[in-house]
Amino acid sequence: MERRKFLTSAALGAAAAPLATPALAQSRTDMVIVSTWGRDFPGLGTSAQRLSARIEELTEGRIAVQYFAAGERVGAFDSFDEVASGNAQGYIAGDYYWKGKHAGWAPFAAIPFGLTYTEMDAWMKFMGGQELHDKLGDEFGLKGFACGNTGVQMGGWFNKEINSPDDLRGLKMRIPGLGGDVMAKVGASPVSLPGGQIYENLVSGAIDATEWVGPWNDFFLKLYEAAQYYYWPGFHEPGTQLTLGMNKEWWSGLSANDQNLIEAACNEENARQAAETNANNGVYLQRLLDEYGVELREFNDDIYEALGEASNEVIEETRDHSALAAEIIDSALAARDQVGAWAALADAPYVAKRNRFLDL
Amino acid sequence: MERRKFLTSAALGAAAAPLATPALAQSRTDMVIVSTWGRDFPGLGTSAQRLSARIEELTEGRIAVQYFAAGERVGAFDSFDEVASGNAQGYIAGDYYWKGKHAGWAPFAAIPFGLTYTEMDAWMKFMGGQELHDKLGDEFGLKGFACGNTGVQMGGWFNKEINSPDDLRGLKMRIPGLGGDVMAKVGASPVSLPGGQIYENLVSGAIDATEWVGPWNDFFLKLYEAAQYYYWPGFHEPGTQLTLGMNKEWWSGLSANDQNLIEAACNEENARQAAETNANNGVYLQRLLDEYGVELREFNDDIYEALGEASNEVIEETRDHSALAAEIIDSALAARDQVGAWAALADAPYVAKRNRFLDL
Repeated sequence: MERRKFLTSAALGAAAAPLATPALAQSRTDMVIVSTWGRDFPGLGTSAQRLSARIEELTEGRIAVQYFAAGERVGAFDSFDEVASGNAQGYIAGDYYWKGKHAGWAPFAAIPFGLTYTEMDAWMKFMGGQELHDKLGDEFGLKGFACGNTGVQMGGWFNKEINSPDDLRGLKMRIPGLGGDVMAKVGASPVSLPGGQIYENLVSGAIDATEWVGPWNDFFLKLYEAAQYYYWPGFHEPGTQLTLGMNKEWWSGLSANDQNLIEAACNEENARQAAETNANNGVYLQRLLDEYGVELREFNDDIYEALGEASNEVIEETRDHSALAAEIIDSALAARDQVGAWAALADAPYVAKRNRFLDL
Repeated sequence: MERRKFLTSAALGAAAAPLATPALAQSRTDMVIVSTWGRDFPGLGTSAQRLSARIEELTEGRIAVQYFAAGERVGAFDSFDEVASGNAQGYIAGDYYWKGKHAGWAPFAAIPFGLTYTEMDAWMKFMGGQELHDKLGDEFGLKGFACGNTGVQMGGWFNKEINSPDDLRGLKMRIPGLGGDVMAKVGASPVSLPGGQIYENLVSGAIDATEWVGPWNDFFLKLYEAAQYYYWPGFHEPGTQLTLGMNKEWWSGLSANDQNLIEAACNEENARQAAETNANNGVYLQRLLDEYGVELREFNDDIYEALGEASNEVIEETRDHSALAAEIIDSALAARDQVGAWAALADAPYVAKRNRFLDL
């Protein structure tokens, strides 16, 4: 904020701040939110429900939210069309689910070898990310805000050990978005399934491996019953961002105050979900190890190298889709490299040195 | 949220959601905020000003905020008393400035070898941190929310190389909070100075070294003119949290909606400042190296070991202050260890592996 602007505002505030349109004069509106997560699903589902309730709370009910979990009104993957068409006012999802509609959506959820939560938030809010999300949204009549982040995801659950890139060949793995495209490059067969269908497919052997989120979210899918090896760190979703995508015509009809309150609720939940996930991942990681005999495995350097090369190819293909996709990719990767070079002096070495001293 | 509660709320919303007290009936109130940062100071100062303006915006001017930077109404370190006494309604500061009033304040800003930004946010929101901050605030008539985080701070600016713990002996260093206590343990002489007085003291030789924040904030203090060696990673403030501390009696008189809106504004700014700092640290790190010939140095393992041992002693002394200080320390360190064990499989190794592949 510039000093002049703030002083003016403060001076006005002290004397006779002009109250903006008061609540009674702001029109009341219904907001149907359809989400891609199951009802009450710990982590993703509960975060979406909490955001929906918070929008109603902050607006004192002027925006009356009706929340529908996946399958309650439309299927998970039909949420985008439901909102773009105006049948509903908002979706909550990872935007990579819409990469078939435009390659530019995927980077706003996750890029293989891409941005962590804190890097993604820096990009969205201060390095051009939000502006590009708006530009892409305009092509579909949508306006969105980031509203959640799962942090670095685990590499996934595997029925066999993965000791070299060759072990990935022929593997049928549930992995959506660009991460799935990377797995295809190294010879695996990626499939995209909503969370509610993963367990049965892994148990039946229809798939050999799956990623989902991390210890906390994965625990509740009981994936430990169907696969023994739990790999880290995931390369494919290093800070998966979730979005509240809104019908732009509906959004444009809201008062400036209600728009601010929705933005504030999204900003809050973006950090709150990240905090909740970090708080719970430690607890559930320990439970998976102690109570269910899960075996942790680290992706070795050969595998990371192969996945890195494949990721670069996939990123190039996304860039080739269109001028806007290229603009999005280039902006995101520039942010990754710039903030990432800082992270190399900060969070990463600090945690490594601290944990070594503490024997964590 | 429980399903029953939400369904009820949604059903009501669709039919006839009872509007809570409308804005016109909510009383208008002035809020004087005094901060510990200089006017328009990039990073800390601009974040505090942005939060002040956002509270006024979200409440549509019902809360008319007058913001005073350090020295404009009271000196930086008098902010706490100004609010506790009711002369002002809020302070924006790092709570470690108040450790002389109660040892329990420091851990809410930073603990040496303690929590990073994401770990701190997990502790505050989901592992008991907020509840303990409230409990400590009650002893002083205060109610606070986290409202900013600088991330991992740099180790500081030094006039000579620090190659062994012995090089720290006799060093006069500006370093506040528990980090200063740690430096005293290893034989240095810590001093606490507001940001506006650091440069002159370093240039004059009154101090030999200083920490401030990181590349972005440090750039504007021109510390590169006064010291050549810039050390990483900082052990002393691994995720420095800032607080909006409010006079509790004033807070208690607000409507529930205005309380929610202040909380939302703080939650937003907490993440926004972290994002802004990360976005800018990369840029200004490069400028410091390219334009000003700053030399980066890494604290070696011997130094980290010595600082770790001293940190443990300082943490024990904080714990010994009182039952509440012990409760705060134990809660914070339990969160660090639990979330930190997860970080060891997630952010830290992911960034290391990714950066190695990308040659960052």
